[in-house]
Amino acid sequence: MSDNFRKILEANINYSKNFGNKSEFHAPPRRKIAILTCMDARLNPSSFAGLQEGDAHVIRNAGGRASRDAIRSLVISYKLLGTDEWYVIHHTDCGMASFTNDIMVKNFSSDEEKRILKDDIKAAKAAKELDWLTFKDPAESLIDDVKTIRENPMVPGYIPIYGLLFNVKTGRLEEVKEANEAGEVVEVTT
Amino acid sequence: MSDNFRKILEANINYSKNFGNKSEFHAPPRRKIAILTCMDARLNPSSFAGLQEGDAHVIRNAGGRASRDAIRSLVISYKLLGTDEWYVIHHTDCGMASFTNDIMVKNFSSDEEKRILKDDIKAAKAAKELDWLTFKDPAESLIDDVKTIRENPMVPGYIPIYGLLFNVKTGRLEEVKEANEAGEVVEVTT
Repeated sequence: MSDNFRKILEANINYSKNFGNKSEFHAPPRRKIAILTCMDARLNPSSFAGLQEGDAHVIRNAGGRASRDAIRSLVISYKLLGTDEWYVIHHTDCGMASFTNDIMVKNFSSDEEKRILKDDIKAAKAAKELDWLTFKDPAESLIDDVKTIRENPMVPGYIPIYGLLFNVKTGRLEEVKEANEAGEVVEVTT
Repeated sequence: MSDNFRKILEANINYSKNFGNKSEFHAPPRRKIAILTCMDARLNPSSFAGLQEGDAHVIRNAGGRASRDAIRSLVISYKLLGTDEWYVIHHTDCGMASFTNDIMVKNFSSDEEKRILKDDIKAAKAAKELDWLTFKDPAESLIDDVKTIRENPMVPGYIPIYGLLFNVKTGRLEEVKEANEAGEVVEVTT
């Protein structure tokens, strides 16, 4: 067991001692919110958005991207657990703007010496097959992702999708008008 | 702007007023940890595992599953941002145990009246094409997911993958021996 693991288990014992009425909480989010954001260590959605345990679904991946898996999660969130308001939150200084698919593939395959290892050849192949969902500008990727979600046929038009940018230098959530507009409630077409 | 949105922005202003030295934090997680867990509203990893802003990557989806997207995020986490210890955390009373792929497809297509709408036909098709990654037992799914990550060719053998179950009735993290064993550090094969 690592030091980290030990510390996590110790912290968890303290947490559980003050668990209080949280044991009575149910699965459907109380405030009917789902948030999609980045895995970045500097982001703590419950703190920066003032959410308590039980309030909101939180979906996170590298970049806060509207991947197939994020959409799977969002659809489960509304269809089975009743959320009706979604927030997509990207952030400044995101690692996803620092590389490209090509760089990622090279990361796994540029070392000629390592490539003779069977595992490295397999890894390079896997890296090549994956779309790493990188981007250049977090506001642009935010607009793209809100559009992707809005246009998915499983996503009902009555759910507003808000787009925000978290500034890692100030802790502020900044509204991105074009993203909010892309996420506006729409009438169902017949 | 909804009530929720207004409250989130208000809470965020307070948060940013006490942002302190967090503005100096960098992207690589300080404690070199990445956590993969469920989007469930009752789970707050920073609280139940004693993590501070900047400490750890947090990846979340419906079920905390080792999806293609979760693996994308984990690989970026170690390869570009240096994490070297991963935790997969599923939980009791998970919504993912309450349905199946078939139920999800029916959710989108059983209503004959609705099916005449073009959008609903598209939605039913999309729902059918997706693997919803449901499971029956959270401990079993945890073992499966740790194995899936351990066996991915892009995941280096030196990263330990721990498997834990969060108990929503007690707030405790429970170790799952078989998951931890599946995630043990392995020698690189040549």
